[in-house]
Amino acid sequence: MESRFTSFVGGPTGPWKIVSLRAVCGDGIPQASHLELRDGLNEVEDATWQLRGVASNLRYTQESERKALAAVQPALGRAEARCAALIPIRKTAAWWLLAQDERRAIVEEQSRHIAIGMAYLPAVARKLFHARDLGEPFDFLTWFEFAPEHAAGFDALLQALRASPEWDYVDREVDIRLARVR
Amino acid sequence: MESRFTSFVGGPTGPWKIVSLRAVCGDGIPQASHLELRDGLNEVEDATWQLRGVASNLRYTQESERKALAAVQPALGRAEARCAALIPIRKTAAWWLLAQDERRAIVEEQSRHIAIGMAYLPAVARKLFHARDLGEPFDFLTWFEFAPEHAAGFDALLQALRASPEWDYVDREVDIRLARVR
Repeated sequence: MESRFTSFVGGPTGPWKIVSLRAVCGDGIPQASHLELRDGLNEVEDATWQLRGVASNLRYTQESERKALAAVQPALGRAEARCAALIPIRKTAAWWLLAQDERRAIVEEQSRHIAIGMAYLPAVARKLFHARDLGEPFDFLTWFEFAPEHAAGFDALLQALRASPEWDYVDREVDIRLARVR
Repeated sequence: MESRFTSFVGGPTGPWKIVSLRAVCGDGIPQASHLELRDGLNEVEDATWQLRGVASNLRYTQESERKALAAVQPALGRAEARCAALIPIRKTAAWWLLAQDERRAIVEEQSRHIAIGMAYLPAVARKLFHARDLGEPFDFLTWFEFAPEHAAGFDALLQALRASPEWDYVDREVDIRLARVR
């Protein structure tokens, strides 16, 4: 069985070259030249940084949405997907104190988070990792993969999410863009 | 700030004497004489077992329910609460593959999990720890505290939950009863 736990390791080597790394809001993280994804949470030697996450159950997605997503979402690792992005975000304490129905309403009824992502499927493959309950500095790590011709579409996707009411609760965000080198 | 991470440590010492420890379904855990709650997840020497959990955001509770609970739920550590229970449970893979609305419907609309717990407030104080995304053998650890005169009520609470549709998805459960010794 594939591990649910993944480490994103920034450092001198790895199959993904870091094309850009910038803080969108809040504190950034150090520059590194390459990224490697590793199974598990064990500390990696010679890492410039290591961000840990766990693939978990759905938190907001309803069954009708899950079905619609499953019909169009591609797997990771497509040969043509030579571009990737890693977007670590942290949400405010106020967000985490909200009840489940309040957070769902902000995520989807107000912000159309799921619907926006759906509009860029199957071009942009996506996998969400939860990090908050591992005691990590970010709450979520989202990993995206797409072909170079969909890079502009990916920018539009991020722009739509960042303009949504949900992003009022984001107090730290880093945007890391990558190109596959092997 | 209080740590969100807690270790429940079974072993030869601790402020809680283990009065009984039995498997309700699935594999049990070894007998131990005492229990100690420790902040953090670090491995404790001389532990017979150590179960780790994290206090996290609400997963199913809606705002109206949160408010109603907040109005009646007591703090942990009341002087009269000389009895406690630790109930580790694991849910099936099928449960974790359900969408959010499907799990919510089973938890509350079908099983009245929140309403059942509410009926025993303020007698039975309760705190939920999440363990699945820490890679732990159980998915949840729930800690309960109550005065000796509410022990029968606590048994009725557990009986009602175990008879609910939600418990069809529980494939491992251990029931640990405790008495405060210092």
